[in-house]
Amino acid sequence: MIRFYNGRVMTFSDGVKISGDEVWTDGERIAYVGPEKPDRPAFEREIDLRGDLVMPSFKNAHTHSAMTFLRSYADDLPLNDWLCQQVFPMEAKLTPELIYEMTRIAIMEYLTSGITASFDMYMKNDAYAAANIDSGFRTVICGALNDFDADPEDIEREYLKFNSGSPLVSYILGIHAEYTTGLDRMKFMSELVHKYRAPFFTHNSETKAEVEGCAARHGATPTVLLDSLGLYDFGGGGFHCVWMSDEDVDIFARKGLWAVTNPASNLKLASGIAPVCRLADAGVNLAIGTDGSASNNALDMFREMYLVVALQKYLTGDAAACPADMALKMACQGGARAIGLGNCDDIAPGKKADLIVIDLMRPNMRPLHNIAKNIVYAGSKENVRLTMINGRVLYENGEFFIGGEPGKIYEKAEKLLKEIM
Amino acid sequence: MIRFYNGRVMTFSDGVKISGDEVWTDGERIAYVGPEKPDRPAFEREIDLRGDLVMPSFKNAHTHSAMTFLRSYADDLPLNDWLCQQVFPMEAKLTPELIYEMTRIAIMEYLTSGITASFDMYMKNDAYAAANIDSGFRTVICGALNDFDADPEDIEREYLKFNSGSPLVSYILGIHAEYTTGLDRMKFMSELVHKYRAPFFTHNSETKAEVEGCAARHGATPTVLLDSLGLYDFGGGGFHCVWMSDEDVDIFARKGLWAVTNPASNLKLASGIAPVCRLADAGVNLAIGTDGSASNNALDMFREMYLVVALQKYLTGDAAACPADMALKMACQGGARAIGLGNCDDIAPGKKADLIVIDLMRPNMRPLHNIAKNIVYAGSKENVRLTMINGRVLYENGEFFIGGEPGKIYEKAEKLLKEIM
Repeated sequence: MIRFYNGRVMTFSDGVKISGDEVWTDGERIAYVGPEKPDRPAFEREIDLRGDLVMPSFKNAHTHSAMTFLRSYADDLPLNDWLCQQVFPMEAKLTPELIYEMTRIAIMEYLTSGITASFDMYMKNDAYAAANIDSGFRTVICGALNDFDADPEDIEREYLKFNSGSPLVSYILGIHAEYTTGLDRMKFMSELVHKYRAPFFTHNSETKAEVEGCAARHGATPTVLLDSLGLYDFGGGGFHCVWMSDEDVDIFARKGLWAVTNPASNLKLASGIAPVCRLADAGVNLAIGTDGSASNNALDMFREMYLVVALQKYLTGDAAACPADMALKMACQGGARAIGLGNCDDIAPGKKADLIVIDLMRPNMRPLHNIAKNIVYAGSKENVRLTMINGRVLYENGEFFIGGEPGKIYEKAEKLLKEIM
Repeated sequence: MIRFYNGRVMTFSDGVKISGDEVWTDGERIAYVGPEKPDRPAFEREIDLRGDLVMPSFKNAHTHSAMTFLRSYADDLPLNDWLCQQVFPMEAKLTPELIYEMTRIAIMEYLTSGITASFDMYMKNDAYAAANIDSGFRTVICGALNDFDADPEDIEREYLKFNSGSPLVSYILGIHAEYTTGLDRMKFMSELVHKYRAPFFTHNSETKAEVEGCAARHGATPTVLLDSLGLYDFGGGGFHCVWMSDEDVDIFARKGLWAVTNPASNLKLASGIAPVCRLADAGVNLAIGTDGSASNNALDMFREMYLVVALQKYLTGDAAACPADMALKMACQGGARAIGLGNCDDIAPGKKADLIVIDLMRPNMRPLHNIAKNIVYAGSKENVRLTMINGRVLYENGEFFIGGEPGKIYEKAEKLLKEIM
């Protein structure tokens, strides 16, 4: 058991609440949240918070982890040139070994940013899952069926395999996007969705061109099309959700779907700003993702939370829109629930011990008028003192405990990378 | 003398260039930038960069440092409520002691973000200057004449005093804004500008309402009005510059004025996005500021650089707009030149030793396809390994060397703050 004491704890069960309670973990779960007790068990470790804050961790609800291999490789290009001339040709050369090593770098970055789970859509998922398991990181893999995959049956095999292996890994059905997937394969996916009564995710309405293209191809928006095919019959949601019609928003609200916003990526690729306030007002569930580091380029939930709130104030012309608590809940609680990790969504007895410690002794956190607002409006990676996943400390005081030295991980990754450049 | 070796150095004299050169400092200046030499002087310290990057430091070209006292105190409010009901009543209670302590917190935050100089407009400048001098931080104070000051003659006294004291402190003429300053006082300021043949700065075209109000009051935009009064006859510029007419842009370009953009503050207060690309295309000089922590709330140049480039891509609809190098130059070189610190604008022999070391061994900097893009698109405070001002290391590996322990500084500041709450 591990004890966090002499500090503060943020919980969500009653709004965003901060108390002076202690937190105890026992194995992979949280065992106790409450005031100091005179009778205490023997702890394997007692962590003096020195006034710092234990809080629910961030969940990255949309990413392509191994795309670290293209970070800062081809920025400042028009979207189409970037994708077709730079990204696709490089991706064709990816090996499982490179996916593994580049995922390790992404995991390290997630840990520095207080992210304890990712919802990842990419390729070579065995290598990807191994990198997560070996590091002790939690991930949910999203299927990425599209017209370029050899065998659509792989999706079902992956679904079964990754939902019955390591407790750190699970799998949710998905296609890459409407614009990369023909009707036949979408219908095939709908059969799987119905067979397993399972939620479904995909890139949805990221760019104006995508929505216009879908209208030309199918006479409907991506959301209306996917819904008409029954893909959203058991929940799920969409990544990006920038260009949403009123009908799309209505479908998302009625079906309890999740809109995962990726503000940094959408700005940098000039895609637009997702209507987060409009979605929230309609009752749509919301979560936040970083997208991959080829487009963002940081895997940093502090950046994303800040952008969510600041961009909505800009978009609505109302400085009161989208208050800080909303982004915190999206990043911690919404992210968890969106990707089937409802047992990682708060700090409470019985929940999984996925949590972070925020260093309040850095100048950007002072004074302490409002700690939640400090985190959203002024927080940064420098404030992440500790990141715990499934009861294990994987990152603390700038050091990683993921089985491997950073220098060695970079060296191996960059050696493999050089071979394909 | 201090030697930085075994790493990389970024310089601006020939575009944004990165070499394997060493950097030597001697007292307050840079003494040598070049390859390793067999004959070396005796150094007081030799810093093994272990592959890390020495680069010119960031300059914060618009801020209100002591506003740390209102960080996260009253966010998520409409602009007018925030300013009139929260900020102004609290500012009326500020004491010199509180200005001093709150400035110390801001300086600490600047150091964590690689910022080595600030262009600060606020009040009680003796206390403010003392906090900078005592910390070893470099600052340029901007005059803030307005209709609520008791005695406009103070501006001239301050101008003379702060330009002849500590080499860390200088002073530039300014008014708070057109909307807080009557014509009489603007004309008085213009006399000072002409007497000293000095540049002039002010808040300029931050909000649409400000520009519309100025049109109603004076039948002109703020820029046209200020220029017609001769205030821009010896250079200077404006803070924010969000709502600029073509004529305004033309005046800025012709007169060599500086537009200081504050993207985070402008988003959060729903003021808009400054047309940085349009200004650049017209040949206007550009720099970046954080604004105060009541409105931002972070004092973080990584956030601002990212926003500058990402928001321009969004605004122009062109992912190729505003490349990363542009933001780097604005933050390091533009900022220095805008505020009269041309001798702090690069790493070259004879320049002031205001520099930073970027930690390239953090996961957000890997791989090293393009270090400059990594810094702008993925960099964060975690990457600032060392901050040097005037040849002195004030921050290194998370520790401050500013004459005082962080805990003690927070404690004193927050005790004083409590007395006015």
